[in-house]
Amino acid sequence: QGTRDHPPAQAALRERLLSAVVSCFKRHGAAAIDTPVLELRETLMGKYGEGTKLIYELQDQGGELLALRYDLTVPFARYLAMNKITNMKRYHVAKVYRRDSPATTRGRYREFYQCDFDIAGQFDPMIPDAECLKIVHEILSDLQLGDFVIKVNDRRILNGVFAVCGVPESKFIPACSTVDKLDKMPWEEVRSEMVGEKGLSPEAADRIGEYVQLHGGLDLIERLLQDPKLSQNKLAKEGLGDMKLLFEYLTLFGITGKICFDLSLARGLDYYTGVIFEAVLLHQENEHVEEPVSVGSVAGGGRYDGLVGMFDPKGRKVPCVGVSIGIERIFSILEQRLEASGEKLRTTETQVLVATPQKHLLPARLKLISELWDAGIKAEMLYKKDPKLLKQLQYCEDTGIPLAAIVGEQELADGVVKLRDVATREEVRM
Amino acid sequence: QGTRDHPPAQAALRERLLSAVVSCFKRHGAAAIDTPVLELRETLMGKYGEGTKLIYELQDQGGELLALRYDLTVPFARYLAMNKITNMKRYHVAKVYRRDSPATTRGRYREFYQCDFDIAGQFDPMIPDAECLKIVHEILSDLQLGDFVIKVNDRRILNGVFAVCGVPESKFIPACSTVDKLDKMPWEEVRSEMVGEKGLSPEAADRIGEYVQLHGGLDLIERLLQDPKLSQNKLAKEGLGDMKLLFEYLTLFGITGKICFDLSLARGLDYYTGVIFEAVLLHQENEHVEEPVSVGSVAGGGRYDGLVGMFDPKGRKVPCVGVSIGIERIFSILEQRLEASGEKLRTTETQVLVATPQKHLLPARLKLISELWDAGIKAEMLYKKDPKLLKQLQYCEDTGIPLAAIVGEQELADGVVKLRDVATREEVRM
Repeated sequence: QGTRDHPPAQAALRERLLSAVVSCFKRHGAAAIDTPVLELRETLMGKYGEGTKLIYELQDQGGELLALRYDLTVPFARYLAMNKITNMKRYHVAKVYRRDSPATTRGRYREFYQCDFDIAGQFDPMIPDAECLKIVHEILSDLQLGDFVIKVNDRRILNGVFAVCGVPESKFIPACSTVDKLDKMPWEEVRSEMVGEKGLSPEAADRIGEYVQLHGGLDLIERLLQDPKLSQNKLAKEGLGDMKLLFEYLTLFGITGKICFDLSLARGLDYYTGVIFEAVLLHQENEHVEEPVSVGSVAGGGRYDGLVGMFDPKGRKVPCVGVSIGIERIFSILEQRLEASGEKLRTTETQVLVATPQKHLLPARLKLISELWDAGIKAEMLYKKDPKLLKQLQYCEDTGIPLAAIVGEQELADGVVKLRDVATREEVRM
Repeated sequence: QGTRDHPPAQAALRERLLSAVVSCFKRHGAAAIDTPVLELRETLMGKYGEGTKLIYELQDQGGELLALRYDLTVPFARYLAMNKITNMKRYHVAKVYRRDSPATTRGRYREFYQCDFDIAGQFDPMIPDAECLKIVHEILSDLQLGDFVIKVNDRRILNGVFAVCGVPESKFIPACSTVDKLDKMPWEEVRSEMVGEKGLSPEAADRIGEYVQLHGGLDLIERLLQDPKLSQNKLAKEGLGDMKLLFEYLTLFGITGKICFDLSLARGLDYYTGVIFEAVLLHQENEHVEEPVSVGSVAGGGRYDGLVGMFDPKGRKVPCVGVSIGIERIFSILEQRLEASGEKLRTTETQVLVATPQKHLLPARLKLISELWDAGIKAEMLYKKDPKLLKQLQYCEDTGIPLAAIVGEQELADGVVKLRDVATREEVRM
């Protein structure tokens, strides 16, 4: 349930998509690492907030208690701490596992790929953070997925908001995970969850509501920096100052047109400590709809300065910021688009089919194909002793092989091969 | 235990190795598929002989009972049956899981990559089988791993041997798995396991011993086809006839020099039904050793005509033959060789570092690097506001970046960039 096989057409499309993402990561100088699918159970516990209950655990068959990784960020942090690495730019493309309710039409599965790019190290503020947003912008533009917006916020700003609205610090994380639902439910419902389930006072909830419904650009940052309450809060001031710096860098990158500072963005995971962001595709359902409709998040990430320290015996921190590309949702979109276009993706790369027009020529085919393979040419033949020529040419048409190398009795006698262009039917002897 | 992280240098070497293997698979016209790491527990049970106890099972957290895949062959057969596919040439490169005692120096892990190529379908005898052996030959030659031999046998020949030696059919599989140990222990020990643990009569074991210690080429096949007892056994005759055909095809491929018909080869898995093979590297420990010493299996496979039928409700069979490349052992060898050579593999592909020689030029760096990224150029910069030029050039040398694009105050005023070749220190303004 919630997993799937990828038949060749899907695997080919996926390879094309992943290679676009990986080229972008390499363009930004990242090195690849690989970590096991299995992690110690204790490594994963307490890192994912409400997600923790979705972790797949292995049966205790003796030895260590294991679980399947839930994302690639926690294993990366564990890797940095274990190897005492304080400085690294890496990417990792691999499958992760969540015992979630599958919604396969929207691209939500229990086994799915993540494509992560992260920068670890103590650097000057917001330079690596800005690069992460540039990467999201490059990938979504390259893939031509249509219009998109990248929402940006900062956990410090959110925590500052909670503080000035009178929320006790112990309730910051629950408040945060409730705010995160604002993209799926109206404020009234979020408010009632805050008061009912999370135990915030109605007044605090109302005050929060005034902030988290705001979104804008540099102008909003400036306005909040002047906000009489928020400007008094150390965390919020830091967050807003950094947000201003981020916008400066994004302006130099020329991408602020797609960036929106959105105070309702909270992200579900516990480990974020600074900037957070999420990219959503905007989709004009039909021409009469004025407001673009969001079709969901296709990339997300943020800063997590405390996570590596949780795995270090001495608690030494390594600041990190990273981005994860939501490849499954993008894959669903590209797949639907390909289907609609009627274009057929080739699933193999075979350049030439080795064929014979008469019987008893299997040895000639085997000799020729062996020469071609040894010369690095992608070649196939039918696994029949005496296939009909028509069947062999039909196979080329069905699978998109552009050339047929034909050896008949005459060609054998003359020491030549007849090379046929399958589409034009032109033939040359060589 | 038995798993490992791959740091960038290893990940880069692995990428190089896997891409050599995948190119070979693509050269032979295979399409890629992907299947989940998780399979239903029942899918895996009863397929792996003594290996079954090494299967990782997931905890029952409600819903289906799951296990981690043990190889890529059973999932492939399950995939064919589920989708009623009767004809397919596919490759699959992915991780598999076995709760084995790890022997990491020899490249044996609990999580490891398999690289599989299989041909499914009803075809004329031994043509796809010969291609599998050609693939092993191509890959081991390409990777320049030194001398190797590919041992070939046939389960039908082995079963014929057991039959004519007086072993009851119910003991064929246990007898087979004992014969399989002949590459690791002397005949005397194998014989005593047969008699002691597997309950064969001493006479039967002695008769088996006369056959399974034979190895050779076409001459041996001819001799056994004349063997008074074996030639009377239907299965053995079929197997020997096909083995002769196989050698004919391998002669046309020009690879018989590395092929050895070896009656001791049995392979541990239950599902093989015809040809089986295994490639081992030969290693001249030192010049005084006359006999080459085997350093273990680096590829293996065979024919399994019954496996797909086990997953089909009506038991419809799809004949299959395939090969699995033992990438982990090859990786260990290449890694040791790289280490010995002192060569340093680059872990990133960055072409140019964007650098500034004075302070307050971060905006110039951000603008230039953004232009480079947008032009598809792999570029990095240090994440510092005002890094020293020497530090920036040092970073190029450390990570192998060949060029530095330098923008200083003068360059900005002139509207140029200074491009520096890091190795030669030559500079051009452009």
